[in-house]
Amino acid sequence: MPVTRRSFMKGLGVTGGAGVMYGAMSAIGLAPAAAEAPFRAPTMGDLVGQAPGHHSVAVLGAGPAGMCTAYELGKAGYDVTVLEARTRPGGRVWSIRAGTEETDLNGETQRSTFSDGHFFNMGATRIPQSHVTLDYCKELGVEIQPFGNQNANTVVNYASDTPLSKTSMTYRAAKADTFGYVSELLQKAASRGALDDVLSADDKHALAEFLTDFGDLGSDGRYLGSTRRGYTSEPGAGTDYGTRLAPPHSMSDVIRSGIGRNFAFDFEYDQATMMFTPIGGMDRIYYAFQDRLGDRVKFGSVVTAMRNVPEGVTVEYTAGGRAQSITTDYVVCTIPPHLVGRLGNNLPADVLAALKAAKVTSSGKLGIEYSRRWWETDERIYGGASNTDKDIAQIMFPYDHFHSDRGVVVGYYNTGKRHQAFESLTHRQRLAKALAEGAEIHGDKYKKDVTSSFSGSWRRTRYSESAWASWDSTSPEYKLLLQPVDKIYFAGDHLSNAIAWQHGAFTSARSVVAALHSRVAGPS
Amino acid sequence: MPVTRRSFMKGLGVTGGAGVMYGAMSAIGLAPAAAEAPFRAPTMGDLVGQAPGHHSVAVLGAGPAGMCTAYELGKAGYDVTVLEARTRPGGRVWSIRAGTEETDLNGETQRSTFSDGHFFNMGATRIPQSHVTLDYCKELGVEIQPFGNQNANTVVNYASDTPLSKTSMTYRAAKADTFGYVSELLQKAASRGALDDVLSADDKHALAEFLTDFGDLGSDGRYLGSTRRGYTSEPGAGTDYGTRLAPPHSMSDVIRSGIGRNFAFDFEYDQATMMFTPIGGMDRIYYAFQDRLGDRVKFGSVVTAMRNVPEGVTVEYTAGGRAQSITTDYVVCTIPPHLVGRLGNNLPADVLAALKAAKVTSSGKLGIEYSRRWWETDERIYGGASNTDKDIAQIMFPYDHFHSDRGVVVGYYNTGKRHQAFESLTHRQRLAKALAEGAEIHGDKYKKDVTSSFSGSWRRTRYSESAWASWDSTSPEYKLLLQPVDKIYFAGDHLSNAIAWQHGAFTSARSVVAALHSRVAGPS
Repeated sequence: MPVTRRSFMKGLGVTGGAGVMYGAMSAIGLAPAAAEAPFRAPTMGDLVGQAPGHHSVAVLGAGPAGMCTAYELGKAGYDVTVLEARTRPGGRVWSIRAGTEETDLNGETQRSTFSDGHFFNMGATRIPQSHVTLDYCKELGVEIQPFGNQNANTVVNYASDTPLSKTSMTYRAAKADTFGYVSELLQKAASRGALDDVLSADDKHALAEFLTDFGDLGSDGRYLGSTRRGYTSEPGAGTDYGTRLAPPHSMSDVIRSGIGRNFAFDFEYDQATMMFTPIGGMDRIYYAFQDRLGDRVKFGSVVTAMRNVPEGVTVEYTAGGRAQSITTDYVVCTIPPHLVGRLGNNLPADVLAALKAAKVTSSGKLGIEYSRRWWETDERIYGGASNTDKDIAQIMFPYDHFHSDRGVVVGYYNTGKRHQAFESLTHRQRLAKALAEGAEIHGDKYKKDVTSSFSGSWRRTRYSESAWASWDSTSPEYKLLLQPVDKIYFAGDHLSNAIAWQHGAFTSARSVVAALHSRVAGPS
Repeated sequence: MPVTRRSFMKGLGVTGGAGVMYGAMSAIGLAPAAAEAPFRAPTMGDLVGQAPGHHSVAVLGAGPAGMCTAYELGKAGYDVTVLEARTRPGGRVWSIRAGTEETDLNGETQRSTFSDGHFFNMGATRIPQSHVTLDYCKELGVEIQPFGNQNANTVVNYASDTPLSKTSMTYRAAKADTFGYVSELLQKAASRGALDDVLSADDKHALAEFLTDFGDLGSDGRYLGSTRRGYTSEPGAGTDYGTRLAPPHSMSDVIRSGIGRNFAFDFEYDQATMMFTPIGGMDRIYYAFQDRLGDRVKFGSVVTAMRNVPEGVTVEYTAGGRAQSITTDYVVCTIPPHLVGRLGNNLPADVLAALKAAKVTSSGKLGIEYSRRWWETDERIYGGASNTDKDIAQIMFPYDHFHSDRGVVVGYYNTGKRHQAFESLTHRQRLAKALAEGAEIHGDKYKKDVTSSFSGSWRRTRYSESAWASWDSTSPEYKLLLQPVDKIYFAGDHLSNAIAWQHGAFTSARSVVAALHSRVAGPS
């Protein structure tokens, strides 16, 4: 059953009449919608228009860029077909649940036996507040919840040559000590007059006030520890004043240990609290797109060739064991750039060279289901991540199922060399290494109560072969691929300034949709 | 129908046999449970034991301390009766919903017309990860979710004599600029040798590395702005590199404006991210207690007297327009300390004096329902709070109903003089003042799309008359009240080291339960 315009509009409360030009009530700078369109408040996720006449588009790939492209073109009345090699939507947005089965390029097959309702996101797992991804969640009715991107109760554990070396320290204590000493040092320098050439008396007064608060300094300007570090025994009733953590480590140990190396993570534009995620897994977004697109998405369709031909673009693919082909007016190719050259094609040499310029990245995760939420019961950790300079890089605690009897911890999420230390291993070896390193951070309980696990390496994942592809977005190669090759367009996060983010894939898709429509319908 | 031991145990999977001593598998230091008790993992919220014979206890007040006391005593087989003046459980944990009606001590009656499912918490609204409150949520099956206690997209707006005066600046920009300049200053002082008496060469090297990252300093050690400040236009596809916020404010303006005055809020032991809250309102906890306690809780019972008598304690109260009394073996009084002296009583003079020593606090909130979530659509704010030195002190954005068509914003949550600026006003006047101040922070839209509102001042709220009562927890008055007066015990957050937190009420209640049981059953 073909998807009708009405079904695309499901839930939008929109009745854009035929003949409405494909303008936009959006933040991406398209022309405004024609006056006869009924009013509705603009959202970042919203493109409104109508294709003049019949135009067919094949979209290669049902990941974020492909699904967004097909959805937006579909809303505008284009005849879209999505060809997807996998049997699920989402591409690198992949939530691992009970029954998830995958054979990787190492030749190993894993099948997840996570408990019902438990999962982890192998790929994208968090959404910044500013990203258009949230607008799509809203438009598609995908419920969201906060994602814990920092937690005072998770720990840091780094190698160094100080007494803090290879020991676990809560973020709250690490921050208290670091900010305490930084504040003490700056206050000392300022009060000595060492900065009088850049600080007025008023500045110094205001700075002292800030530093006293920021570092919890004593009246003598010194940092001597703080309740911010935490307690070994919580204050309670009556005369139970609690037991504070031991006095802080020395200034030199704190500074030289580098425990503050990750504090700025949460200041980054794309990582600052609050962060969000769909309830039930990031893949919910793509099942919601799928719900709108219906059988226009052809799963199990492995594209083998795409060629500009006089009638449009011919795409060859195999599906159900048979070689098939489709010729459409246009193609939007969201296949990862480093894999496009493998297709049969008649792309120009400079385009093929440009596609190869993308740098691929090793990254992946391992999910561990425990039958006991020891991080909650024993360490009072509810979400967030512990960080280390071991190969595992970080341990991410679940953002859902709080207080239940089990949960899935991400035992590593790492990139580059630290991930390469895992990607050639068998799953069993990966798990063993992850448990060993994790136990050095959270103790022997880390190895106990493990009921299930699943791992993936994007470089070894068929149809992806990279966690993300990146390049200098001012390079000639990048810019070349922003242009269509005759009737073939390229889209994906790799063609955006938000590489590895769904926002990048969506904005790229929306840009291609706008360009394609402008070509078909003329400028609005 | 009396509540049976079994109904208290509902959902606990516990079958503690008769004769189990009232020990504890808990962090509060009671004796371990007897060996014959079936094993279950200890939780902080867990007290296990059994009363020897029949013992009756009247609990005065169905707030956190009262409900916890009754619940724990009930689990142990005590015959408990809770007398509560209000018609709801929770005390100062009060979620305002459609139909909430209250006549305050100013004589004004408000009735909430919030939309179905929307609410705000007039009292407690957040739970730190370490608090026993979470253990009760777990034990009672109250589902929790993250509470946004900081947000990079909310704003600060303070009066000062700099160009930043009375303007709104996002937390992300305020932090980027403050940490940038602080890092630049300290790096400058250290590189000048101004701290060579306290920093070794190694220290200086490590410090420089930290500061460069923490402040996003340039290679010359200067802070010249950062993408951390944010964008006026989000980076997107192709060559849409986004538009960064204007260059940072000057060092002197940033320092003297005091925009960093609230940065340490999130470092405080009780306020650090992650924070949690029950899904659907903090009062869910007390309805869950109520579900366990059943008709042992007598609502609408206004206690007028309590007196130690030879048979135990006689409590007089009015209910249903009639004067009634009950005599029980013991009483646990959770009535706010400054209100106990108003009861008919035979308490000793020193106890009455001690009760009066508690200092009462003005505080309250105003909830505003908007029919448009402008904070999400226009400012990309999903939870968290904006802060100001205006009387409203802060504007708290809802932590739930993301992406819906409406939501309840807390227009102020303030204490002391800043709250006193509101508490004598009518609700209409409070709303007008809150909207005027809020509009100076978030613009004219703050005054639009308001569909409903409700406010409360704890000093003017019957049966509370204070947001919290506090004193020096090492004072003789405080310590005196930790002891029972014959068969009357006092409990409440005011008798803990976590005043104004549910944790304080719970730990106080647990301490009283343990003391009472120890007296009845002898040391375990």
